[in-house]
Amino acid sequence: MIDKSVLPDTQNLKDPRNIAIDKVGVKELKYPIAVKDKENYIQHTVATISMTVDLPKEFKGTHMSRFVEVLQCKDREIHVDSVDKILKDMQKKLNATASHIEMEFPFFRSKKAPVTQKESLIDYKAKFHAARNNDAKDFVLTVVVPVTTLCPCSKSIAKYGAHNQRGEVTVSVRFNDTVWIEDLISLVEESASSELYSLLKREDEKFVTERAYENPVFVEDLVRNVVLKLKEMPHITWYSVEAENFESIHNHNAYALIESHKPLNGYIISRY
Amino acid sequence: MIDKSVLPDTQNLKDPRNIAIDKVGVKELKYPIAVKDKENYIQHTVATISMTVDLPKEFKGTHMSRFVEVLQCKDREIHVDSVDKILKDMQKKLNATASHIEMEFPFFRSKKAPVTQKESLIDYKAKFHAARNNDAKDFVLTVVVPVTTLCPCSKSIAKYGAHNQRGEVTVSVRFNDTVWIEDLISLVEESASSELYSLLKREDEKFVTERAYENPVFVEDLVRNVVLKLKEMPHITWYSVEAENFESIHNHNAYALIESHKPLNGYIISRY
Amino acid sequence: MIDKSVLPDTQNLKDPRNIAIDKVGVKELKYPIAVKDKENYIQHTVATISMTVDLPKEFKGTHMSRFVEVLQCKDREIHVDSVDKILKDMQKKLNATASHIEMEFPFFRSKKAPVTQKESLIDYKAKFHAARNNDAKDFVLTVVVPVTTLCPCSKSIAKYGAHNQRGEVTVSVRFNDTVWIEDLISLVEESASSELYSLLKREDEKFVTERAYENPVFVEDLVRNVVLKLKEMPHITWYSVEAENFESIHNHNAYALIESHKPLNGYIISRY
Amino acid sequence: MIDKSVLPDTQNLKDPRNIAIDKVGVKELKYPIAVKDKENYIQHTVATISMTVDLPKEFKGTHMSRFVEVLQCKDREIHVDSVDKILKDMQKKLNATASHIEMEFPFFRSKKAPVTQKESLIDYKAKFHAARNNDAKDFVLTVVVPVTTLCPCSKSIAKYGAHNQRGEVTVSVRFNDTVWIEDLISLVEESASSELYSLLKREDEKFVTERAYENPVFVEDLVRNVVLKLKEMPHITWYSVEAENFESIHNHNAYALIESHKPLNGYIISRY
Repeated sequence: MIDKSVLPDTQNLKDPRNIAIDKVGVKELKYPIAVKDKENYIQHTVATISMTVDLPKEFKGTHMSRFVEVLQCKDREIHVDSVDKILKDMQKKLNATASHIEMEFPFFRSKKAPVTQKESLIDYKAKFHAARNNDAKDFVLTVVVPVTTLCPCSKSIAKYGAHNQRGEVTVSVRFNDTVWIEDLISLVEESASSELYSLLKREDEKFVTERAYENPVFVEDLVRNVVLKLKEMPHITWYSVEAENFESIHNHNAYALIESHKPLNGYIISRY
Repeated sequence: MIDKSVLPDTQNLKDPRNIAIDKVGVKELKYPIAVKDKENYIQHTVATISMTVDLPKEFKGTHMSRFVEVLQCKDREIHVDSVDKILKDMQKKLNATASHIEMEFPFFRSKKAPVTQKESLIDYKAKFHAARNNDAKDFVLTVVVPVTTLCPCSKSIAKYGAHNQRGEVTVSVRFNDTVWIEDLISLVEESASSELYSLLKREDEKFVTERAYENPVFVEDLVRNVVLKLKEMPHITWYSVEAENFESIHNHNAYALIESHKPLNGYIISRY
Repeated sequence: MIDKSVLPDTQNLKDPRNIAIDKVGVKELKYPIAVKDKENYIQHTVATISMTVDLPKEFKGTHMSRFVEVLQCKDREIHVDSVDKILKDMQKKLNATASHIEMEFPFFRSKKAPVTQKESLIDYKAKFHAARNNDAKDFVLTVVVPVTTLCPCSKSIAKYGAHNQRGEVTVSVRFNDTVWIEDLISLVEESASSELYSLLKREDEKFVTERAYENPVFVEDLVRNVVLKLKEMPHITWYSVEAENFESIHNHNAYALIESHKPLNGYIISRY
Repeated sequence: MIDKSVLPDTQNLKDPRNIAIDKVGVKELKYPIAVKDKENYIQHTVATISMTVDLPKEFKGTHMSRFVEVLQCKDREIHVDSVDKILKDMQKKLNATASHIEMEFPFFRSKKAPVTQKESLIDYKAKFHAARNNDAKDFVLTVVVPVTTLCPCSKSIAKYGAHNQRGEVTVSVRFNDTVWIEDLISLVEESASSELYSLLKREDEKFVTERAYENPVFVEDLVRNVVLKLKEMPHITWYSVEAENFESIHNHNAYALIESHKPLNGYIISRY
């Protein structure tokens, strides 16, 4: 048996360099999580997690194993509702002023094809960045939504057809009342030339092909359409909207970004 | 209402090029799956899936939507036990001789730290490649296991210490009796300098540091140790073992591969 | 000064496990290279390299540093013409029967826009897999070519427009007379709905939009068109052709593969 | 012949949404570049480039092809010295107030092994983010440096050995006098347990193994050591230092970040 008392605690040593550390912790930790979705299903998915705290200038190191201890639970699965408890546990167990947790995970939604009504699941990428600083809280929800974009310029100049492609819209929001991942997804999908589906029969393919042709958007239109809708939601207090089109006629991408410039109250996550 | 009968079926057209297609289908489809593990838990995880069939030279195209229809199920989750049914459905619905499904997913295992016995979950990558050709079946199970490797040369020449690093072992097997993912993982972990853990307290870290120092392995030793153990399992009919060390003293990796050269009975997946 | 003679050579120890290793060496080594292109320019680019040899069952380990020594040269840049010399050096310095080198690198080509004739550079991915086994040689050239694909089904059923997207064709060939990377690229580009450009003015965009609409191809058509052209080149002794479309109406990809089934003379790279 | 005058310029239309765009342009464009290094060699390498400008609320779209036109040059290779000219050309050709260019590329350095003095090339990742806003300029240089880190805790508690691993330090700086990529690299390498090499003979491996054991650093020590050195360089006006260790005993990484909190004069790149 090893006598723990004789093992030196190197991390607790005094540090002479007089430099505080903004964030220290673990990254690229994979863990099963449960997310409740709007239709009241529990989604079981897998998150890639990073957890960090600040470290005062006095201490040589943090205690990395405690981050993982905070995550462990009886159910072998983290429930997303427990995120704030995790942040508080991190502050307490690691004697920290600030704590951050970031969780990125695939999120699924069932969709009906527009004509045949056949159902299929489609995947999105979602991300939480939750933080506490003393008692102040911050939370940023990010959703990455794949869409169809059809080029207005190509449509207007060509005799027939128009180049179109898969694009990806990344929306991040802060808010002061509930925002569902599903609502953000819908908002983006309505801003594009067409939404995507996993399952489309011929009648459906006809429908989405024509819908895209009738709704051409530049990458600039896409981010503006999303921002217009976000501005109408009073509980959204901050946003960042990026779009990237995997251009079908180029080997590079088209890109646009709009970020909210409203002054923000309260604690802001550094370097978000 | 669109009259489906008037929509031309381009895929069913005769093809004049006289060239059969080995594999055609969908790739990078994400889907929630359920895997039963050895301790009898159902693991809910997320797979990246590819599904393909062969296409005779007579036909212009396959029907891509049918691949996704085969996957849909009431439970919003594919049970791994249904893989063979999926393959048969693909053969039938797509009029194909051969069908393939590949599913890659994170797989979790609960582990006790070697001294404190504290439990934590650790992730592995698992992959199924299942195929049917008429009534013949093929199945390859792949597990990617991260390990510690400590360099025997470095240990033997240095006054103290030895460089060590995270490595990754990829084992693929064909078999004629049940093989659990967990058994393959254990077999690899026992072949390395040490296994990895998500949660180690100081007593545990002392233990694994010393264990790694006492069990130095080259990347060559690692693949040979795994192969030695596989050779002792009579129900393993074929194997391929790769190891890659993310060398702590270089910015490139060390790599080794051993593949079974025993003649195989039955149907082999092409280009595996 | 360290006396090298007293440092034990662990790698040279006898190995008791009686298991030969198929491939052992280094991976993910980055190195500047020079490639001569068809227009007689020297392209300076950067390769990701793997180098392996076989290891007889008698020896505990290979000598990893010798792989890197073989690569070093006065010019700080590997000339592609020296690949065979590198393979021979590997056989000699590492006492090996078989040696392999794989080099993957971005390759650039200057293109004129179809109407304005404005020039721009566009990137492709190229790969060499060269091998020697005693005096037998093997060489596989791979090129990954991005293209536009426009869906024939979508065109035939929709009132206007047709979904299209960026796709990627991966062609690998063995040959018995010179094959230029540029020729493989052109062959693929002529098999798609349209080729891609980095720089297109409005007149050019009109042209490529219409060309794509006039030349719809399924992923199946794309691989067949490429194979048809390869079959007409008598010096191509083997081929593998894959296409993957990043579907603009789905969040998954369409995929097709055709591989040459002609019997091959001579030495074949294992597990290619 | 197409009459350009009749092709509508959709991008120049008035936009009714009243929303300015922070950044719009191209991403993931690959291009050969030339970088002059400290030893006065011209390094030929390949950059992944993004270029963006702001777009006033009045205009529907930017002109994507002009970004690529700005890049084109007679030499088929961008010289890094021309970055500011590129930014000015972007402002002018796209009628923009602000312009950004980001270039990420592999950078090579020749190193002598510590005992045998054998030379080899080793790769780093470098990145420029240059911006203009009217006449104000901003420039951030980033270097990603791989290193060896050996754990002080593991060393202090274990009878022998200590876990070590490859880590990666990402340093970004703003400055008001020349900073060489090589100087940033050296500064980081001196802050770690050991630097990495592509080529080490046995005597060298003994040396670096012992050096790492004699210089244990936590991820926290690593970022603090780098920051201490940066604070002594008066021409560094801002810094951000991140370290990530690919822990050899875990399947997740250890991470630390310190960012300069000094007030900055002049224009700052948004969302850096």
